[in-house]
Amino acid sequence: MSEQPRTPDSARRSERSRRAILDAALELVGEVGFGKLTIEAIAARAGVGKQTIYRWWPSKASVLFDSFLALSEDSGGPVLPDTGDLEADLKLVLRATADELADPKYDLPLRALTAESQHDPALARELNEKVLEPQLAAFEARLRSARDAGRISPRADLRVALEMLVGPLYHRWMLRTLPLTHAYADSVVETVLRGLAPGPESV
Amino acid sequence: MSEQPRTPDSARRSERSRRAILDAALELVGEVGFGKLTIEAIAARAGVGKQTIYRWWPSKASVLFDSFLALSEDSGGPVLPDTGDLEADLKLVLRATADELADPKYDLPLRALTAESQHDPALARELNEKVLEPQLAAFEARLRSARDAGRISPRADLRVALEMLVGPLYHRWMLRTLPLTHAYADSVVETVLRGLAPGPESV
Repeated sequence: MSEQPRTPDSARRSERSRRAILDAALELVGEVGFGKLTIEAIAARAGVGKQTIYRWWPSKASVLFDSFLALSEDSGGPVLPDTGDLEADLKLVLRATADELADPKYDLPLRALTAESQHDPALARELNEKVLEPQLAAFEARLRSARDAGRISPRADLRVALEMLVGPLYHRWMLRTLPLTHAYADSVVETVLRGLAPGPESV
Repeated sequence: MSEQPRTPDSARRSERSRRAILDAALELVGEVGFGKLTIEAIAARAGVGKQTIYRWWPSKASVLFDSFLALSEDSGGPVLPDTGDLEADLKLVLRATADELADPKYDLPLRALTAESQHDPALARELNEKVLEPQLAAFEARLRSARDAGRISPRADLRVALEMLVGPLYHRWMLRTLPLTHAYADSVVETVLRGLAPGPESV
């Protein structure tokens, strides 16, 4: 099939199969967990042959990774609002992150991918490059604009600052210590911003 | 054997076997990873019979968990110094945490346990109750003493504060984004403490 010239119809069919496979992987990981997820079950749920999946992906982890990536792209990708009010913008985004992490649609595949990536360095690298770093870069861009506007200290290390925003949420989510509430997101934003405020010495 | 009265000699032999098993599990998870770790291999390395392990532990995850717990206890357990200098005390402890997480002796079993606990709620609970929460409680106690001494704002939420200290280190470690340096640990401590400083309104 890959040798045939692609017609608009076959391209459309391929895209339809691809989406069905990605959706099936997401649904199934939520139902049975990553350990019991199989290529067979994904194929059956998507209504395609096993070989169709093997032609496009080397492993169930790579299917699930692409499912998660499609999910992130559907939600508009990582862009932070810039209304000029840094505190409001960060609270909006971290509250949305808290809600997303609590939503089984994101929670289960991301947890499975994170667990899997602990003993799969290639998956860890891909997860970092394609999912995580673009999100972190969006935070960094928003903080840079605030620093340029004099809202945060010119000496602030933006990379450390953004990790201080997302790290505590991630910690609570990954380790399931306490619920990921909006109040928690707000409190993290407020403390970090007080910590980054331009001091009298920098005016 | 469990029906026999325990003599000092048999108790000593049991303890020796237990330590050999815990040490073997730690060594092996570093060599082969959690996925390929087996009770058979632990027994062979420890020089005991498989049945000795099954008598004491229900699964390889629970052996590894006890290995990790013994390792933490050997290092003195979670106590934070209180020299009166909060910033110095926190930097000391977070630098040590960064070093520990970068040390394969801690890194590999803790990574395996964290990954495993993503789809094993009982293990997640045990990891939280016996390893994580005691560490977090030690941070909270140190912050409370600082709040009582007026070094941080009386309005500071100590639980959120401690998660802001450990969360960023954990995030960088778990996701392997950037190296866990002492400079990073210091920067996190400095920003959090500026964020928690008592404001003029609270004096």
